[in-house]
Amino acid sequence: MIIVMKPNAAQQSIDSVVSYIENNGLSTHLSAGEEVTIIGIVGDKTKLPTDNLISFKDVDRIVPVTETYKLANRKFHPDPSSIQVGNTWIGPGSMSIMAGPCAVESEEQLMCIARAVKKSGASILRGGAYKPRTSPYSFQGLEEEGLRYMQTAGRETGLATICEVVCQEAIDAAVKYVDMIQIGARNMQNFILLKEAGRSGLPVLLKRGLCATIDEWLNAAEYIIAEGNPNVVLCERGIRTFETATRNTLDLSAIPVLKEKTHLPVIADPSHSTGSYKYVAPMAKAAVACGADGLMIEVHNNPACALSDGPQSLTFQKFDRLTRELEPFCALAGRSFERFDGQASDCHRTGE
Amino acid sequence: MIIVMKPNAAQQSIDSVVSYIENNGLSTHLSAGEEVTIIGIVGDKTKLPTDNLISFKDVDRIVPVTETYKLANRKFHPDPSSIQVGNTWIGPGSMSIMAGPCAVESEEQLMCIARAVKKSGASILRGGAYKPRTSPYSFQGLEEEGLRYMQTAGRETGLATICEVVCQEAIDAAVKYVDMIQIGARNMQNFILLKEAGRSGLPVLLKRGLCATIDEWLNAAEYIIAEGNPNVVLCERGIRTFETATRNTLDLSAIPVLKEKTHLPVIADPSHSTGSYKYVAPMAKAAVACGADGLMIEVHNNPACALSDGPQSLTFQKFDRLTRELEPFCALAGRSFERFDGQASDCHRTGE
Amino acid sequence: MIIVMKPNAAQQSIDSVVSYIENNGLSTHLSAGEEVTIIGIVGDKTKLPTDNLISFKDVDRIVPVTETYKLANRKFHPDPSSIQVGNTWIGPGSMSIMAGPCAVESEEQLMCIARAVKKSGASILRGGAYKPRTSPYSFQGLEEEGLRYMQTAGRETGLATICEVVCQEAIDAAVKYVDMIQIGARNMQNFILLKEAGRSGLPVLLKRGLCATIDEWLNAAEYIIAEGNPNVVLCERGIRTFETATRNTLDLSAIPVLKEKTHLPVIADPSHSTGSYKYVAPMAKAAVACGADGLMIEVHNNPACALSDGPQSLTFQKFDRLTRELEPFCALAGRSFERFDGQASDCHRTGE
Amino acid sequence: MIIVMKPNAAQQSIDSVVSYIENNGLSTHLSAGEEVTIIGIVGDKTKLPTDNLISFKDVDRIVPVTETYKLANRKFHPDPSSIQVGNTWIGPGSMSIMAGPCAVESEEQLMCIARAVKKSGASILRGGAYKPRTSPYSFQGLEEEGLRYMQTAGRETGLATICEVVCQEAIDAAVKYVDMIQIGARNMQNFILLKEAGRSGLPVLLKRGLCATIDEWLNAAEYIIAEGNPNVVLCERGIRTFETATRNTLDLSAIPVLKEKTHLPVIADPSHSTGSYKYVAPMAKAAVACGADGLMIEVHNNPACALSDGPQSLTFQKFDRLTRELEPFCALAGRSFERFDGQASDCHRTGE
Repeated sequence: MIIVMKPNAAQQSIDSVVSYIENNGLSTHLSAGEEVTIIGIVGDKTKLPTDNLISFKDVDRIVPVTETYKLANRKFHPDPSSIQVGNTWIGPGSMSIMAGPCAVESEEQLMCIARAVKKSGASILRGGAYKPRTSPYSFQGLEEEGLRYMQTAGRETGLATICEVVCQEAIDAAVKYVDMIQIGARNMQNFILLKEAGRSGLPVLLKRGLCATIDEWLNAAEYIIAEGNPNVVLCERGIRTFETATRNTLDLSAIPVLKEKTHLPVIADPSHSTGSYKYVAPMAKAAVACGADGLMIEVHNNPACALSDGPQSLTFQKFDRLTRELEPFCALAGRSFERFDGQASDCHRTGE
Repeated sequence: MIIVMKPNAAQQSIDSVVSYIENNGLSTHLSAGEEVTIIGIVGDKTKLPTDNLISFKDVDRIVPVTETYKLANRKFHPDPSSIQVGNTWIGPGSMSIMAGPCAVESEEQLMCIARAVKKSGASILRGGAYKPRTSPYSFQGLEEEGLRYMQTAGRETGLATICEVVCQEAIDAAVKYVDMIQIGARNMQNFILLKEAGRSGLPVLLKRGLCATIDEWLNAAEYIIAEGNPNVVLCERGIRTFETATRNTLDLSAIPVLKEKTHLPVIADPSHSTGSYKYVAPMAKAAVACGADGLMIEVHNNPACALSDGPQSLTFQKFDRLTRELEPFCALAGRSFERFDGQASDCHRTGE
Repeated sequence: MIIVMKPNAAQQSIDSVVSYIENNGLSTHLSAGEEVTIIGIVGDKTKLPTDNLISFKDVDRIVPVTETYKLANRKFHPDPSSIQVGNTWIGPGSMSIMAGPCAVESEEQLMCIARAVKKSGASILRGGAYKPRTSPYSFQGLEEEGLRYMQTAGRETGLATICEVVCQEAIDAAVKYVDMIQIGARNMQNFILLKEAGRSGLPVLLKRGLCATIDEWLNAAEYIIAEGNPNVVLCERGIRTFETATRNTLDLSAIPVLKEKTHLPVIADPSHSTGSYKYVAPMAKAAVACGADGLMIEVHNNPACALSDGPQSLTFQKFDRLTRELEPFCALAGRSFERFDGQASDCHRTGE
Repeated sequence: MIIVMKPNAAQQSIDSVVSYIENNGLSTHLSAGEEVTIIGIVGDKTKLPTDNLISFKDVDRIVPVTETYKLANRKFHPDPSSIQVGNTWIGPGSMSIMAGPCAVESEEQLMCIARAVKKSGASILRGGAYKPRTSPYSFQGLEEEGLRYMQTAGRETGLATICEVVCQEAIDAAVKYVDMIQIGARNMQNFILLKEAGRSGLPVLLKRGLCATIDEWLNAAEYIIAEGNPNVVLCERGIRTFETATRNTLDLSAIPVLKEKTHLPVIADPSHSTGSYKYVAPMAKAAVACGADGLMIEVHNNPACALSDGPQSLTFQKFDRLTRELEPFCALAGRSFERFDGQASDCHRTGE
């Protein structure tokens, strides 16, 4: 932490900052430049409320020099983490594809989708049972019933399973049925939920908030890890900007930035970020190319009839073509996933 | 809801959209222009997942023509609402000033602040007992103990009280001790918490999310009201932009926009939005001038030692000067509040 | 300028930064903290390309400690400036109201509007003769012919006049006919135009770019002043955000921030920022309340037929009502302007 | 263009909208729904100022249904364009790599860089001779002298050349010396410059404005093409958001969106957008993967001493490694470029 004083700050102002810091048991280091005096703080900054120093007379700026997150910080954990989810791993060397419907609608639907995405190379089945929706009048999910279908579909296909949670009650249910829980974008700074997720024992997929900085996102991950749960995977899903041609703006630069700042795996969600099935394939390839450890992709047996987020869902055919096209990109990125080419799924599908 | 087809859409594409809508029990209205065909939907749109229509062949765009919120909508409730909080009202004719520390630190501190803000014209005492903080290592609040101090301070001074809640447990405690609960910016789309707040029976102050649109904000209010609790007050507290000179960008235009779209009262928070005590007074006046029903202002007996958000807190003197200066602006805006000029508070205060 | 090294930076890395700086004729000041080493630069920073230091090994961050603008900086010019425009002044004590049509359409129209806005209290007539339009197929202005009408209208009514310029040719024409030139938002970083405006000799109204920071804006003003023209007035006209209920987001907090950082006068444009006549009056009052030196407001004799930006234009009646309502707000803000109440204008006007 | 009336709009209000449209020589098509009445406009909309309709009584919204750009629109030009620049082409099948220094500093420096980037696969040499800089006190470029060096370097190496222009004078000089001109982000809506570039006869690289929507960007391209110059290439270079870990946010989703909306080639600039050499390689690969026709990359013989934008420049070694790694990604994307492996460049280079 550095305190930059204003040009021509009075000696008395400098002294009062120094006293405040030293009275809190820390020491200081002064640097008097031609234009400004700079005060460095030496010692354990958690002991004093440093933000308040900005209120002191003649203080111009407070400049933090170290990050507030420790457990998520690559500086203290240089090797990239690999996180186990059911029978699969997310991390170096593998391309983890999470696929499935935005919302679980019925057992039959889910089973049909699970079989299809498994064949095309997904290792984790996604499906929403608790849907946070902007309007209270929109479909809100099948809740525990949906989770049971997820468990069944996971057992039948051998896929690991992930489901979004929105409260302690949902976490309690998720622990019984699925392999990984997801904290959605809108709950990224729901700190109570982060702590509860941290105590759940399950690996957690933490989506970036719609207007969260990377620093805030890593602090949110820190909340989970600080509860004793190191199994956190980050998911870039688009930030809100003024552009309206896509639903949000997928911030792919965040991937190499995160690879530098944290050891946690990072995946990308090209479905929610773009809001349109047309842009899913190019953005999935781009995410792989810039270092993503995985992808989360919405797949639906009949997008036009989906109860939630149909416009961005891929049909089985489109998803299969995408994973075929992804394979060589993954190879270049030093990653792999397994396709099961064989008989096509027998449930109803929309044509292309 | 209007469906705009692409130029030269095939007749078959138009037919399939029409069939889909009619198969769901609604009717359609076609308008074939020179360039494009437009399909209007007639009937109860809640019956069909209209978003998915964008996936249909040759569909260019879906244009909603009505808002999704009803109970918060001024169209169906033309008179502005007045909301009772303890012994005071927020709404037309009055300027409700909520003041107090960001975080409750001790009973003595709170009592001292409560007396000071009461004298200067506040009608509601604010004080955080559950603090959502970006870093898990920052001070998180006194929790229930803090709420008890709020109750005591409210009883002693006659001020109504408000406290932020972050989970059901906090709501349960708040119901026992305070007059109004606050949903913070980070929880604006924590739909579970919104519903719980709706069932609490207490009036709710709903802060705007950092990157929430006005439309999303009103839908969040709808969640609360839909639980049978019409006592919602909105609080504009700044949105996130690229500008760094202020912590956030106070979107004052939102106030006249909200006055047009909803009957709910709207207040502004110039403390959190600007992040600096220097900008609180001008922005408070501006908020009054453009129609705010109230203000939320951070006041601290010793900002330089505050455990949270010191830089933006006003001293007692600055707050007193502000409310004096606000009085004629409120008069122009057809609003009033009551100051109790008399003996100065006797607790320790920082000088100017 | 401070250079923050990474934790555990090698001594060799520190040495190479120090050498680079000293080889450029400056001196350094080291501060070795527990966690990081910080290197301060002492001397004239214009001598070395400091940004590049970020490429040096083990350098974590470069922290500027002084602003790059000098002539616009209040630190070196503590008294607020007052700028003469024709026969009127913009600055402390006065509320300068610039009003008129977005685009000059005809001499008759302009004269009619000029008389009306003069009566209601405007001191400066605005009117666009060179219109920067998003689409090449939109109306682009009457150019020099429009400027001649501005001159005539100014002479007839005694109003000072202002017109946007978009190139040297427009400046050359403007110098002959009007009292002040405007650099529009889209040209805020058209540095060639800024320099040309600086050499024009006319006072310049500099609108904020749609996504310009306050710091960039002041640097743009510096371009004009550095050419020897100190007569710059800043105009906040809304920034681009994700909110769509208003055309842009009027950043009123910028006004008190600018009052602290610069001595230049600041006005607000509630017409372009909100994009709707409905929000002009409340935002105009708010701008006055938080310290604006003036307002720029679009007024049209028949908004529904305006060739440009009709939706945000006020009718004569609405503008007259607004200035009446503004008077007491200006009085509170210690500012005044002069209304000429008398016979109503005789040209055709739309009713309310 | 569709006009959506408010719920319960008076018949008189509907009639007055219809009259206004019909009086302007167009016809209307009414659609009276249960909730709202919608008025479609049939005919040539350029005949009436439709925006103003929003001012009419009971009008709720105006919904455009067609884009304002025609010549840049893929609807009317379904095949992707290929643009010739000197002896090379930008478009389908090729990966055009533009590389070079941010600013031309000397003939020797430029020649050295030109040789190096040519060997590593660049087909176009970039180098700034007219630098638009935020501060008037920063280095502004060598101007015409710089262009002459560009010409020499182009002739010696066989590379095509590109240089940013900021005014007519710079265009006049550029026409004499280089093969392509660039309009920078800050000038994207400098419509005068766009028209001048359109009349220059040279192909134009049009960078996206920092806060420009894709729609505005295509309208800016339309300005150039409307002057008779169809040779426009778009360059995504990052948009401004609240994120500070990268200088801007590279909006790669814009690439597939543009591929749908326009026939013009699109390239990406990972150097300026991220602001750090560390992120250039991953983002370059991502851009190729999602469909870019080319890349613009800053390369410098000694980044730590560059006069402009050093932190984001690649050394020769890093650039060479990048193009080697890019080759297989280009192959997957169906594109190619030519490397000249051989003797290393002999000018001074920084080590890695």
